[in-house]
Amino acid sequence: MSRKPVLALVGATGAVGGVMIDIMNARQDWPWGEVRLVASPRSAGKKMTVRGEELTVLALAPEVFDGVDIAMFDVPDEVSARWAPIAAERGAVAVDNSGAFRMDPDVPLVVPEVNADQIASRPRGIIANPNCTTLSMMAALGALHHEYGLRELVVASYQAVSGAGQVGIDRLHAELAAVAGKQVGARAGDVREALAAAGLSQEDSPFSGPVVLNVVPWAGSLKDDGWSSEELKVRNESRKILGIPDLKVSATCVRVPVVTTHALAVHATFERPVTVAEAHKIFDAQPTVVLVDDASDGRYPMPADVVGEDPTYVGRVRQALDFPNTLDFFVCGDNLRKGAALNTYEIAEKLADELAG
Amino acid sequence: MSRKPVLALVGATGAVGGVMIDIMNARQDWPWGEVRLVASPRSAGKKMTVRGEELTVLALAPEVFDGVDIAMFDVPDEVSARWAPIAAERGAVAVDNSGAFRMDPDVPLVVPEVNADQIASRPRGIIANPNCTTLSMMAALGALHHEYGLRELVVASYQAVSGAGQVGIDRLHAELAAVAGKQVGARAGDVREALAAAGLSQEDSPFSGPVVLNVVPWAGSLKDDGWSSEELKVRNESRKILGIPDLKVSATCVRVPVVTTHALAVHATFERPVTVAEAHKIFDAQPTVVLVDDASDGRYPMPADVVGEDPTYVGRVRQALDFPNTLDFFVCGDNLRKGAALNTYEIAEKLADELAG
Repeated sequence: MSRKPVLALVGATGAVGGVMIDIMNARQDWPWGEVRLVASPRSAGKKMTVRGEELTVLALAPEVFDGVDIAMFDVPDEVSARWAPIAAERGAVAVDNSGAFRMDPDVPLVVPEVNADQIASRPRGIIANPNCTTLSMMAALGALHHEYGLRELVVASYQAVSGAGQVGIDRLHAELAAVAGKQVGARAGDVREALAAAGLSQEDSPFSGPVVLNVVPWAGSLKDDGWSSEELKVRNESRKILGIPDLKVSATCVRVPVVTTHALAVHATFERPVTVAEAHKIFDAQPTVVLVDDASDGRYPMPADVVGEDPTYVGRVRQALDFPNTLDFFVCGDNLRKGAALNTYEIAEKLADELAG
Repeated sequence: MSRKPVLALVGATGAVGGVMIDIMNARQDWPWGEVRLVASPRSAGKKMTVRGEELTVLALAPEVFDGVDIAMFDVPDEVSARWAPIAAERGAVAVDNSGAFRMDPDVPLVVPEVNADQIASRPRGIIANPNCTTLSMMAALGALHHEYGLRELVVASYQAVSGAGQVGIDRLHAELAAVAGKQVGARAGDVREALAAAGLSQEDSPFSGPVVLNVVPWAGSLKDDGWSSEELKVRNESRKILGIPDLKVSATCVRVPVVTTHALAVHATFERPVTVAEAHKIFDAQPTVVLVDDASDGRYPMPADVVGEDPTYVGRVRQALDFPNTLDFFVCGDNLRKGAALNTYEIAEKLADELAG
């Protein structure tokens, strides 16, 4: 096509939407002819600046998709479930960051550096962006899988509170202020008491326990047999993205007192033997992975250093002592950038390339 | 013997020593005829109260062990390495909480509810107390192993800062105060900047990164092939305590912003099939394990609720979906109590029974 493609961002005024606008403002290449910011009627009319141009946020309605080539959705599942098909019907390709379509067999689930080829076949006109926890390790795992054939995955997560949105961030900051200077954490219940004394009731929290001076072994909703929805997403989305329907996965998802950036302890077993040196070489060759792995110098990936960064950071790479063909490693990824907005935008860029084709 | 046994506590003025005195003061049975508190010459002369009696701390010297039946050591490795054999030579049984003797084949490594039978054979007159991270899961794992035969273990830890002693606790409280009210954690380096602005330099920390609004994937010292000493302890001590020399273990040890109580995500594979209902029954039957496992009601073990408690708390018990004979679960244990002082004291109590026997 000769004209430049038109991009819509639905959910522009949300937490991930804000990160998306930061990403767009900082991007070097700019393939878009027009950008439309869309949000709920409540937020419509708000002014936001994209690449120096002040835009007025439009209210979500079928007509906003007319003439749109690519519509990115950063909204709750139920909003995507309703509106992504409407955008597709009006001729846009919907790139959806919610959980509404990820496991739909007619919707590709895409991490560009792992399975960009799957973008081409999208019978519903919808492409899904994976869950942030899965995404945080996918660039690293995909690169290893390509060479060594992934067979088994045991994962434990250290998930940031921003995975629960702005309300999660606000809660952690409020809890921090409530315990600072109080020397609590040495007696059962004293953290809860300090929060209650500061007027922070547990019922008002998006988490099921204190998220300061504590870890909460839960993320998402309860599914069959005690598994959380987040743990099943890690399993099912990893299988779909990597194209390994029988990949063996066990995940334990745990919320920790970190604002943004998910970390994961990964135990990955491959078809073929793999050494640490070989894994380092694979990670070094993958442009979206940064290797930080020198324990002798205290260098390993940590959320406080990775937040706000685009790549997936990998370190603590060790050959399992007792499990053949197995690596243990630690990975950190910004759950709002690569884990959400950035990956969605990268899919949109691939689609723009295709249109420019 | 007709007289009541004499107990010494070496390291009475340290962080674990203080918890030990709390435990002694709260104990129902009291088999001891005399208690001697021992510390470095620097702390000698200090007065401390044990069961209503004011005791003067004695300076560590060979003579303090004369007439002592059982000497508990809560001191650094190098102090134990030197002084536990001296105590043994003078006729005491040394119960050592350091890492100095744990892997010595002539020193039993004991968790009373798992392998109390090994107390009897102690050729060096020394019994070792396991590392706190290993101990935090051992009561639960030992009970399952007894019934189902443990074969493989993949573990990720969420370790409290008090594992690094009082200096770790003080550091976390200082870092909390430095970031409270500052809304940091959303940009790479802003946590580090807030700490520096508060005069907290990284070099003065016992941790290799910020321990507030962050997780640090490191505990202990660097060993071969990128493994940390803490991770190897989990492997080697689990093998020795459970009596499974070929147990397959991979551990990733991570420090989190929690004052006290270690948590672990455990993926355990057994020789025989085991269901969640059977595991619940096993945990219920083990007096030192408390099962907190009702995700539908937001009930699972969390450090903020477990700190200061004696038992090992277990929850999130799930049958692995893709791995045969495998359970995933989450366990919390107070690293200063069962993880250190309590287990040491329980060994001393077993020895008192033997002497009374």
